[in-house]
Amino acid sequence: MTEIAVLGYGTVGSGVYEVLNTNRESINKNADEEIRIKYVLDLRDFPNEPVQKYIVHDFNIILNDDDVKVIAEVMGGVEPAYTFVKSALLKGKSVVTSNKELVAKHGAELLKVAKENNINFLFEASVGGGIPIIRPLNQSLTADEIYEITGILNGTTNYMLTKMTKEGLDYDEILKDAQNKGYAERNPAADVEGFDTCRKIAILASLAVGKQVDFEDIYTEGITNINKIDIDYIKKMGKSVKLLATSKVTDNGVWARVSPVIIGDENPLSMVNDVFNAILIKGNVIGDVMFYGKGAGKLPTASAVVADIVDAVKHLGRNIMTSWSTEKLDILDIDNIDVSKFIRVEYNDKEQAVSAVKEIFGDFNIIEINTACSEFAFISETETEKMINEKIDKLLNKECIVNIPNTIRVEK
Amino acid sequence: MTEIAVLGYGTVGSGVYEVLNTNRESINKNADEEIRIKYVLDLRDFPNEPVQKYIVHDFNIILNDDDVKVIAEVMGGVEPAYTFVKSALLKGKSVVTSNKELVAKHGAELLKVAKENNINFLFEASVGGGIPIIRPLNQSLTADEIYEITGILNGTTNYMLTKMTKEGLDYDEILKDAQNKGYAERNPAADVEGFDTCRKIAILASLAVGKQVDFEDIYTEGITNINKIDIDYIKKMGKSVKLLATSKVTDNGVWARVSPVIIGDENPLSMVNDVFNAILIKGNVIGDVMFYGKGAGKLPTASAVVADIVDAVKHLGRNIMTSWSTEKLDILDIDNIDVSKFIRVEYNDKEQAVSAVKEIFGDFNIIEINTACSEFAFISETETEKMINEKIDKLLNKECIVNIPNTIRVEK
Repeated sequence: MTEIAVLGYGTVGSGVYEVLNTNRESINKNADEEIRIKYVLDLRDFPNEPVQKYIVHDFNIILNDDDVKVIAEVMGGVEPAYTFVKSALLKGKSVVTSNKELVAKHGAELLKVAKENNINFLFEASVGGGIPIIRPLNQSLTADEIYEITGILNGTTNYMLTKMTKEGLDYDEILKDAQNKGYAERNPAADVEGFDTCRKIAILASLAVGKQVDFEDIYTEGITNINKIDIDYIKKMGKSVKLLATSKVTDNGVWARVSPVIIGDENPLSMVNDVFNAILIKGNVIGDVMFYGKGAGKLPTASAVVADIVDAVKHLGRNIMTSWSTEKLDILDIDNIDVSKFIRVEYNDKEQAVSAVKEIFGDFNIIEINTACSEFAFISETETEKMINEKIDKLLNKECIVNIPNTIRVEK
Repeated sequence: MTEIAVLGYGTVGSGVYEVLNTNRESINKNADEEIRIKYVLDLRDFPNEPVQKYIVHDFNIILNDDDVKVIAEVMGGVEPAYTFVKSALLKGKSVVTSNKELVAKHGAELLKVAKENNINFLFEASVGGGIPIIRPLNQSLTADEIYEITGILNGTTNYMLTKMTKEGLDYDEILKDAQNKGYAERNPAADVEGFDTCRKIAILASLAVGKQVDFEDIYTEGITNINKIDIDYIKKMGKSVKLLATSKVTDNGVWARVSPVIIGDENPLSMVNDVFNAILIKGNVIGDVMFYGKGAGKLPTASAVVADIVDAVKHLGRNIMTSWSTEKLDILDIDNIDVSKFIRVEYNDKEQAVSAVKEIFGDFNIIEINTACSEFAFISETETEKMINEKIDKLLNKECIVNIPNTIRVEK
């Protein structure tokens, strides 16, 4: 019998409690051991719920109980999670977590502490919710050199973009709908500005390259600039737009980026809709592999946390995670990364505008959704971000061009 | 340093050799150990190739060499693979294999022998080629009760169905094309009759339920009856047809089936095209998770074999696979399983035919692709396979009905 503690009885924490109870028999069979909750740490009491008998308010009770071998940290946020997790690892307790902020910020150090103490720090649930991705990266794709990871890592924004595409609604209406459904927070910045996605790709990139990729270094652009007109163009092109997080190994180094990208239906990520997440991995021998599932939600996330608990219980006293070094990796400036962009052009003289675009960007195909509007769009050739942006500035200086209402990166 | 042997230098075997050489550095890092090929078993010699220095023709040299700790069996077929693998396991050597026939037939026994000898029998490459599926089932989805596995497990047939849909060609033309491209064998039965898919779902089902599911018990129907006209109807309905393998746990027991199924675009398997494979897993807490990638081919398959070699090297002297019992599981007769069918009706009197269908099957929506042809189609309500088939027989007895040119299962 192995005793465990759960830190936090919020959405994920109550999910972990529920999953451990619902699937008790099969979980114990998979762990080859009876797993028993001894403590649940929360500031609150839950007087009318069965969980109350496990509730403690003081982390030190858990820390100092040598019977507790595994701790599930599902509080979120960097502090006090970091202090709790580190002290638990130093005491020889394995820790599993769903906390992407913690892993992105302190993953390398916590993995090191776990390794030194011959125990485990596992974080399957921190990226992609229930989707197995950390463990496959760590244990299954070991024959490959992974040169690219691209993911749809945030369910809220994917739901919003899907809904905008399907129902032709505008950003603000969709945000309200997502908030009403409980998919988006009242303050939606973490999702819609791409911050959540950014931390997740930082974790995947660090794991794949074996060094610390700081999330602060990753260029991050959310979906707040995407509107109904953009979507109309994208549909006209037979494509879709997704908030993609990418980490790519090139001959010159590694770059990483979070931004909306227009993709065609030859990209399997184009079929990932609604609240689903997916991670596409490209290896030099395996080719493309994709992992798809619910990236958030109480039970899917809890499923990943509990799978980590099972793994931790099976490997007490034996470190199994590939760690990444605390050495910081300087990633490339995306200004120098090749990209192609979808560019909308608002004009006061169409003929002159077409000439101006041709002069600056070369030959192009004009895309129009409504000839009554004074605008068209086109897709640029592939060149560095910096060069394209310079060309856009040049375009804006032309008298015939009123505005560049939006630009969105395009996968060619 | 750990020495290994490769049994068979065919497509997969030469791929394993190539991957071990190409990614030597990262593979050794992942294994935390230098992996070195000592022998390659093949009947042939390869005098002008670097592999020749490893070639042996007698398996006993490998079996009796105590320095060989891990063997990769990539010959295919039940014999002599079974004899070789079993004797190697009994000698305390771990074995990894890509051989679905071997695993479907003798997996339970070989897992048992490996466990008894405290070593490993791993077979990631036997299902889904490079797609990580065995290891995630074994190690990641441990918090869930898996109640359904449905997969597109054969790239050849998926390529053919995709191409029939996209190009409107008929079965025979597509088969020729697939043979010319090297996707289909001269004798294509193993692929097009569903035999290959059947062995793979038998492996997944056995692993998921923990008992031996004999592939001979699984109802198996290939794609040879699907023609251009069926595809036209399916396109008209806005759906697609896939050769699906399913294993499902119900209150009454487990059923399994391989057959073409018409699915809508709400099913993520509908977006799996060309030679790609995918496995959709449904768990009681995680919901739907899908694994997608190349299900065959030299390098993707070799990637999975080598990942298993890495795992075997990391776990010498420590058994890590969940085994399934040799106890046979009697699966349910699909006659009693609920299903819905797409049914084509060729008539000599349309009005009477419509009445006959209505009389036997109840209200239905008529689907027509060409009103000049004397046929229409409809989708039945969901009831047992047996009841639907009896109703079809009844329909065939009506004078106004000339023929039922085809029926295909439909996911509703």
